[in-house]
Amino acid sequence: MSTKSSATSAETSNEELEQILAMAHTAVRPWGSLRPGARADVLDKVAAALDAAAEQLIPLAAEETHLAPGRLAGELKRSTFQLRLFGQTLRDGGYLDARIDHADPHWPMGAPRPDLRRSYRPIGPVLVFAASNFPFAFSVAGGDTASALAAGNPVVLKAHPGHHQLSERTAEIMLAALQEAGAPEGVFALISGVEAGKEALKDPRIKASSFTGSIPGGRALMDIAVSRPEPIPFYGELGSNNPVFITPAAAAARGNAIVEEFISSFTLGAGQFCTKPGTIFVPTGSGIVEQLRAAVLPDAVKLLHDRIQSGFVGRLQELSSHERMEVLVQGPDPLGDPPSPTLLYTTAEHVLAAPRELEAECFGPAAVVIEYDDLAQLVPLAKTFEGQLTATIHGEDSDPVAGLVEVLAEKAGRVLWNQWPTGVSVTYAQQHGGPYPATTSPHTTSVGTAAIERFLRPVAYQGFPQHLLPEELQDANPLRAPRMVNGQR
Amino acid sequence: MSTKSSATSAETSNEELEQILAMAHTAVRPWGSLRPGARADVLDKVAAALDAAAEQLIPLAAEETHLAPGRLAGELKRSTFQLRLFGQTLRDGGYLDARIDHADPHWPMGAPRPDLRRSYRPIGPVLVFAASNFPFAFSVAGGDTASALAAGNPVVLKAHPGHHQLSERTAEIMLAALQEAGAPEGVFALISGVEAGKEALKDPRIKASSFTGSIPGGRALMDIAVSRPEPIPFYGELGSNNPVFITPAAAAARGNAIVEEFISSFTLGAGQFCTKPGTIFVPTGSGIVEQLRAAVLPDAVKLLHDRIQSGFVGRLQELSSHERMEVLVQGPDPLGDPPSPTLLYTTAEHVLAAPRELEAECFGPAAVVIEYDDLAQLVPLAKTFEGQLTATIHGEDSDPVAGLVEVLAEKAGRVLWNQWPTGVSVTYAQQHGGPYPATTSPHTTSVGTAAIERFLRPVAYQGFPQHLLPEELQDANPLRAPRMVNGQR
Repeated sequence: MSTKSSATSAETSNEELEQILAMAHTAVRPWGSLRPGARADVLDKVAAALDAAAEQLIPLAAEETHLAPGRLAGELKRSTFQLRLFGQTLRDGGYLDARIDHADPHWPMGAPRPDLRRSYRPIGPVLVFAASNFPFAFSVAGGDTASALAAGNPVVLKAHPGHHQLSERTAEIMLAALQEAGAPEGVFALISGVEAGKEALKDPRIKASSFTGSIPGGRALMDIAVSRPEPIPFYGELGSNNPVFITPAAAAARGNAIVEEFISSFTLGAGQFCTKPGTIFVPTGSGIVEQLRAAVLPDAVKLLHDRIQSGFVGRLQELSSHERMEVLVQGPDPLGDPPSPTLLYTTAEHVLAAPRELEAECFGPAAVVIEYDDLAQLVPLAKTFEGQLTATIHGEDSDPVAGLVEVLAEKAGRVLWNQWPTGVSVTYAQQHGGPYPATTSPHTTSVGTAAIERFLRPVAYQGFPQHLLPEELQDANPLRAPRMVNGQR
Repeated sequence: MSTKSSATSAETSNEELEQILAMAHTAVRPWGSLRPGARADVLDKVAAALDAAAEQLIPLAAEETHLAPGRLAGELKRSTFQLRLFGQTLRDGGYLDARIDHADPHWPMGAPRPDLRRSYRPIGPVLVFAASNFPFAFSVAGGDTASALAAGNPVVLKAHPGHHQLSERTAEIMLAALQEAGAPEGVFALISGVEAGKEALKDPRIKASSFTGSIPGGRALMDIAVSRPEPIPFYGELGSNNPVFITPAAAAARGNAIVEEFISSFTLGAGQFCTKPGTIFVPTGSGIVEQLRAAVLPDAVKLLHDRIQSGFVGRLQELSSHERMEVLVQGPDPLGDPPSPTLLYTTAEHVLAAPRELEAECFGPAAVVIEYDDLAQLVPLAKTFEGQLTATIHGEDSDPVAGLVEVLAEKAGRVLWNQWPTGVSVTYAQQHGGPYPATTSPHTTSVGTAAIERFLRPVAYQGFPQHLLPEELQDANPLRAPRMVNGQR
């Protein structure tokens, strides 16, 4: 069965979409009013079902995406861990940000303070657009689905056509596990097709949407989301160049390791990571340029699908034919299918002269090496970048880089020191997001437990009797949620 | 000096705007890198300077807005309290949401966890559009300015022409206090004129914007904000009907008090509160309709400015001439200037048949009384509303209204029990916001300490040495900020 015929046969019809949206709407109340711990139990069961199906899912994913089975197994494990970590977030209850102000007749504002109690509740049905490059972790059962479900929202998942069979099989397993765990019907559904995705995004029953993909694709969807009669939050993770800055001291201390690790990082997953280091600044005279020029780059690996292949080739041709750019090193068939990895070369002066052109994202196995003369150039160079998911410094503790760190924190959601941006751990303190065009919502993350915040909205209850309050706001606090009471935590 | 000539003379020119934006950009680093407690000290000094100027400011405000001096004095007190409460928020440090994950080689995701530390930092220069109806609390030194400055951002304040002299004088006092307190130049500036506001909103140096005003005005500005090459968060607080639901039991127990309090609430400030109860549902046979029909409404009071006057008259004409609407009671000159208060009347059946028309916001001293037959009608009636800032129930503890509370929490940011929505206390648990069109960002509040979150963005630091971390993420925690460490609070 070819991927193509399968994708074509599966486009969601208008009638199917209407039914799915109606069911999602119906599921709002029963899913959202489940206790957080009960939702956590359901997420755990979904995770267990997916883990148990690894032997079916991984070969399917490998066939459709050309990604290596080992990498895919790790990604599935990451995804089921993610579901369980959101379960833990629910049981902890801190995500509710519960706040209680007792009535205070002497509140210094000048008027008595009423009894006010505020916490977060589900925002409503969420439309998730799956990514192509992580068929598990940013797809059907990925981070957006996990965080939106955890927050108490039904999810309508627009499948990526690049791994359609995997998407359908993953959804079947999820649906069976959800039903088995007693989740309400309609809490999750898969849709397919560009038109179905757009129609769903316009539907008033959808209350938030998330997306991982290209800048033009994400911006077009964002424009739909914010142009609706009722505009909705749109959390798009789009493009990033992920610059890396090597200080002269780091180059002197660890030049060989940096060269080797950089080559691994920019070619990981054939360069199809949104955190791929697309630019590396290296000091003149450190020998790194020469080492890279002499390096043997990894073999060519087939890209995820035809659109990524043609996009990569087009962008690489543009970049490598730029008058300010040279080819530093590349494998035998840099524009072939599969494409051999490429490193381009330019200088700090050129980047300062034409930053937008030379810093354009090239999604695939290519990166740009930029030679600079003096540590003091790095701040002005860093300032040339648009918003980023990550920015990295390789330095020594004695390097005077506080100013550079500050500029990078203005530009990027995650700043790294002596590590590499590929690999985004799912943790409590992770931040995967950044100023536009890294994302459309610089104040949020799509990885880590804080990702749940995207799919919640606050409500305050004023003067309410105990029995009509959400449990986390009742005096007895049966959920034992952490709370702020009268401004004290 | 007439208001008009003063407003005309003060339109910010392109050259002035360029200088203001350049200065705001320059102030980003020095203001944002001040310790939170130092910024709190500055806010305290601004508050003290405004309090000390009350005798100048209140007469100016009264002249320009027609609001009573007593109300204005209370509003100024609220505003300076607000500045101090954000100062307290800064000293507490919880707003930083500091999270530390120590490196963990056995992290169950399947790959070692790096050392990750995440906290919030200022988003960048904020453009605040002042409201007309609260010349202190939602204007030059109001909640948006206070929360954006507290978050560490320079503020460019677009003055409302309805109280231009007051705006200029308030800004002068603030600027003097900021300078005296050692705040960097450029941290605050006032601009005037519709075009200057739009140009500022389009400028790439502005990184977020907030607005309080009408639905069409707010939506037009939001469209600019999200259409920029780099779209930015736009926090608009627009319109709300603020429905009130009186149960039969409450009507029986406290009908007289409800009638009296409702009349006070909908005519407070001549009905020019975004939380004015615009609709009240009363049970048939309770006598409330008859009591309201016989009520003597308060005297006519001049509205804030000509645009509000003409908007009120137009909307009231539309509503009262609707075939499903009757006039219940009104003063001698309901369409005059000043306009006498009006109560309109219709029934539940009519509202179910034409909700959008009958629930349209009428900004000024008017409200609609809707008679219903049975408590069970309230849920379907509540469902007819768009997003709201508030929704209110007057009931008895034994009323079966859990379902109604749930629908109202889906619709509104604040739900009240046996109180009235006018009066929005500045507290830790306040929520002033709601689904569109109440606001353009259902996940935020513009009143209360959580309002600071709108003007922050998260950054994670991976693998960093102590001396390059923000203080709240250093092991020593010199700010003593509350933190989540390895998932534990």
